[in-house]
Amino acid sequence: MTQGLLIVNTGDGKGKTTAALGLLVRAVGHGMRVGMLQFVKRGTSAGEHRALEALGVEIVPLGAGCTLGREDTALDEQKAREGWDRCAQLLSSGAYDALIFDELTLPLSWGWLDVREVIAALQRRTPGTHVVITGRDAPPSLIDAADLVTEMRMVKHPYHVSRLAPQAGIEW
Amino acid sequence: MTQGLLIVNTGDGKGKTTAALGLLVRAVGHGMRVGMLQFVKRGTSAGEHRALEALGVEIVPLGAGCTLGREDTALDEQKAREGWDRCAQLLSSGAYDALIFDELTLPLSWGWLDVREVIAALQRRTPGTHVVITGRDAPPSLIDAADLVTEMRMVKHPYHVSRLAPQAGIEW
Repeated sequence: MTQGLLIVNTGDGKGKTTAALGLLVRAVGHGMRVGMLQFVKRGTSAGEHRALEALGVEIVPLGAGCTLGREDTALDEQKAREGWDRCAQLLSSGAYDALIFDELTLPLSWGWLDVREVIAALQRRTPGTHVVITGRDAPPSLIDAADLVTEMRMVKHPYHVSRLAPQAGIEW
Repeated sequence: MTQGLLIVNTGDGKGKTTAALGLLVRAVGHGMRVGMLQFVKRGTSAGEHRALEALGVEIVPLGAGCTLGREDTALDEQKAREGWDRCAQLLSSGAYDALIFDELTLPLSWGWLDVREVIAALQRRTPGTHVVITGRDAPPSLIDAADLVTEMRMVKHPYHVSRLAPQAGIEW
């Protein structure tokens, strides 16, 4: 029996979601059953969807879109809680070899989800299921619970790059 | 005309190649023409190949396999130089929208390739071609020349994980 790893990609740099996506592609190549659920984001890029569709993988958006500057976050909080309920069900369903919870750290760090409850559900998951959690500001207790944690640190990101971004296909 | 970015993923942590792989998948989804060439490694995992084959992407191994403990590195150095010649041709061919040179920093940091020569070829590339270079110990002059640099920093990688690794589908 393979041990399921809990992997966290955090930090202020680029590549957190992208690395999770690469891992998903590898897993699919090994015939593993994978799923990717995205918090906060309302949807992913068309390119991501088209490529993953070709591999038979669906990305499930759980968010209400960008919440920046919105005063009333009640709907966003509700969506995050409903999204997490769905994740918790999948974790214990035995239907997946690897699950990616993209940007889960955001509703955690904003206090929309209870960190202890989330960690408890992660620890109760079907043995052998790998989980990858991405997003900046991962809570310390989540890092404690994880097997493998990488910080993506921004070394260089000049102004002209952010002006050009996002570019099709290179949406970090 | 889209500006081609020079992106470097470096650091001692996991996810450098995996993030490049995720970026490649996004680019393919956008209908971009992509290529991935791997230095040092003799070949990638079967899972990686199967998934990328399904997307119509080939990974080209340029290395002679693991060189650790080998006293005579003449063959490895020669393979790296031949590999770079091939990369330089592709860079100016106009045949690619995005090229990934995986682990290119290794032959650079070992002195097998001339950093100035490599940077000059990168700067002469077909306008609009994105390049992603991965590997630890990226030379400072390469970082200077890059548009976007991320350091993947290992935060947590307990002994039991390295004992279990590599696991099929989760080969960081």
